[in-house]
Amino acid sequence: MKNNVFFVNDNLIENRFSSTDIHQVLFSEGVFNPQNHDFARHLPESRILVVLSGTINKLYGQIVREYFESRRGREAQKFLVVECGEKNKNLETVAEVCKAATEMNLKRKSVIVAIGGGVCTDICGFASAVYDRGVPHIKVPTTLVGFGDAGIGIKNGVNFCGRKNNIGSFSHPQLSVLDSTFLLTLDERQLRCGLAEVIKLATVYDLVLFRAVEANGDRLVKSRMQGYQEESVFILKRAVLGILELLNDNIYEVNSYARALDFGHTFSPSIEVSTNHQVLHGEAVAIDIAISSAISKKLGVLSEKDFFRLIGVIKNCGLDILHPAIDAGMLWRGLDSIIAHRNGELNLVIPAGIGACTFLRDPKELNKTLLMEALELLRGIDNA
Amino acid sequence: MKNNVFFVNDNLIENRFSSTDIHQVLFSEGVFNPQNHDFARHLPESRILVVLSGTINKLYGQIVREYFESRRGREAQKFLVVECGEKNKNLETVAEVCKAATEMNLKRKSVIVAIGGGVCTDICGFASAVYDRGVPHIKVPTTLVGFGDAGIGIKNGVNFCGRKNNIGSFSHPQLSVLDSTFLLTLDERQLRCGLAEVIKLATVYDLVLFRAVEANGDRLVKSRMQGYQEESVFILKRAVLGILELLNDNIYEVNSYARALDFGHTFSPSIEVSTNHQVLHGEAVAIDIAISSAISKKLGVLSEKDFFRLIGVIKNCGLDILHPAIDAGMLWRGLDSIIAHRNGELNLVIPAGIGACTFLRDPKELNKTLLMEALELLRGIDNA
Repeated sequence: MKNNVFFVNDNLIENRFSSTDIHQVLFSEGVFNPQNHDFARHLPESRILVVLSGTINKLYGQIVREYFESRRGREAQKFLVVECGEKNKNLETVAEVCKAATEMNLKRKSVIVAIGGGVCTDICGFASAVYDRGVPHIKVPTTLVGFGDAGIGIKNGVNFCGRKNNIGSFSHPQLSVLDSTFLLTLDERQLRCGLAEVIKLATVYDLVLFRAVEANGDRLVKSRMQGYQEESVFILKRAVLGILELLNDNIYEVNSYARALDFGHTFSPSIEVSTNHQVLHGEAVAIDIAISSAISKKLGVLSEKDFFRLIGVIKNCGLDILHPAIDAGMLWRGLDSIIAHRNGELNLVIPAGIGACTFLRDPKELNKTLLMEALELLRGIDNA
Repeated sequence: MKNNVFFVNDNLIENRFSSTDIHQVLFSEGVFNPQNHDFARHLPESRILVVLSGTINKLYGQIVREYFESRRGREAQKFLVVECGEKNKNLETVAEVCKAATEMNLKRKSVIVAIGGGVCTDICGFASAVYDRGVPHIKVPTTLVGFGDAGIGIKNGVNFCGRKNNIGSFSHPQLSVLDSTFLLTLDERQLRCGLAEVIKLATVYDLVLFRAVEANGDRLVKSRMQGYQEESVFILKRAVLGILELLNDNIYEVNSYARALDFGHTFSPSIEVSTNHQVLHGEAVAIDIAISSAISKKLGVLSEKDFFRLIGVIKNCGLDILHPAIDAGMLWRGLDSIIAHRNGELNLVIPAGIGACTFLRDPKELNKTLLMEALELLRGIDNA
């Protein structure tokens, strides 16, 4: 299905699920500037519901309202602000969005627009999947993690009964709008977390993308990935293209539980939980990448040279390859629930060079000694 | 798409959405009898969640539990009873089903089985669409209306913010199990309501089905549609086949707002509401069929002979063609919301003979005088 994803022009990617079912990704800088016409061209004439996260409302609420109202008149949209902490990622917040849609009598051909981080875009994606049995939605992610994951993927979920993303939908946005100027107000640590996901993709899938990150390293963080036609925009576009291509291979996750995009996502849940989320998701992903790569090196799959290139990229982006709270016992215990979730398979993604990967499918392919050796290798690098 | 629906054997219809996405409809009498193997053959080995409506639990709870436990062991399923009045058709009840699924740790390849009327099957269909972003579900409808609508369709919905079915999903069951012996405990009035929907389908789509209902009339009600290999089973199968064929033409309701299956569903909402639901849905559909047919006759589209055949079938099934509370003004006022719902079109379905229909698409094609004349025609028949 990979040839279903392509650039139709310099700033627009199309992912064609079918001739009538298309997801577009628009790249535009300063999308809510009064002079920027890119987004407005993609909006329907009918009334729309615009949902802003609390954070985005504080930072950009006025400029967003002025954009829509000056372009479409005061009555053409309704605005809703929802608090979007992890604790608000629940069915009640989804109902809040559906209630606003009901009150404005939103029709099936109209649109819900979500502007915010992953919690906001997930909530709105899910609400749009169930309101009137499905209305289109548009995602405007405002974090780097959102650019490469929640803002362009088809999975929406909310927490329920103590489980993360336990309830949700597979439904793709009609349009994703990626505006890198939102990254100017993003916390530097959050930006690094986003880069961890870019490194993940580059390592398993895209040598060219890897080289671009490798060549720019910490500059990407410092510049907050600004600058049209520059390396940072190239990285964003290339990353989105790659993620969509990989997602398309297994769009509803029915074909296989072995997914390249799970690279960095096998040990990371334990790391997040056991540090009480003091290690953020992206930071845990970076550590997981380092561990999985060390395992690959120990197994003789990854060459020493490529292993050190990988460790170098992680460190250059200001990310850690270890954390004091991590030990082999803790990681080992955490594997049980991952294996259960992957239908009895381990499917540990390990790099097989830069831009390629393979899987340790059977839980037996990994033992605790190997894990300890991998951690030892990383400790040696950190102490050097 | 019609050729995607066919009998694979005498008791099994398949609706192939794609080669990997199939909805099966199993016909089996006494499906929970210990000697009946039909249903068990379709169940996965993994644990399943069986949801029973309160009514079904009272009438069949024990036999259902014994069936599953003797065949699959005590631990292979969990049972949940949910009250399924219209007032329970809400997001809270959906959450109740999702909670039970979470507590038993239901996996994506497992199944939620719903046994009950339309409220039960809708709630479970929706819960299965969102739990873990979608697990398969099986519907065992227990009412005649359910056999032809909620139990085999792909639309699931719950009431929200005062609107019927305001939130829901398009997701088809993996399997529908149609067991006509459930009709033995069904209220006679409910059975008549189910027949109204069969008459609806037969009139617009299937002359052979129409003849079968015409030839059996009140006997279908009195026998509660029992008897394998008999006319009543033929009617059930033929009705299900026809409905699936028609639904497939416009499965997500995106192609057109002109739908043959909307026959009998233009005036009926006003009739239900204005009589405070003393006239049940199926009864209102029968009256709507009579009114729409009288309009067709007045317009010269439906012949006098076919018009009286149609009126005869409705009356033979013990259904009314009018109600004292109905007048033209009330019906006329009710059309506004229908037209809004159909995107500005009227799309009144009128029969064009037996087994065929046409549409009054433009609201201008119907005026109040014509509506009054149609009601006058029906009053004349009722008073004769």
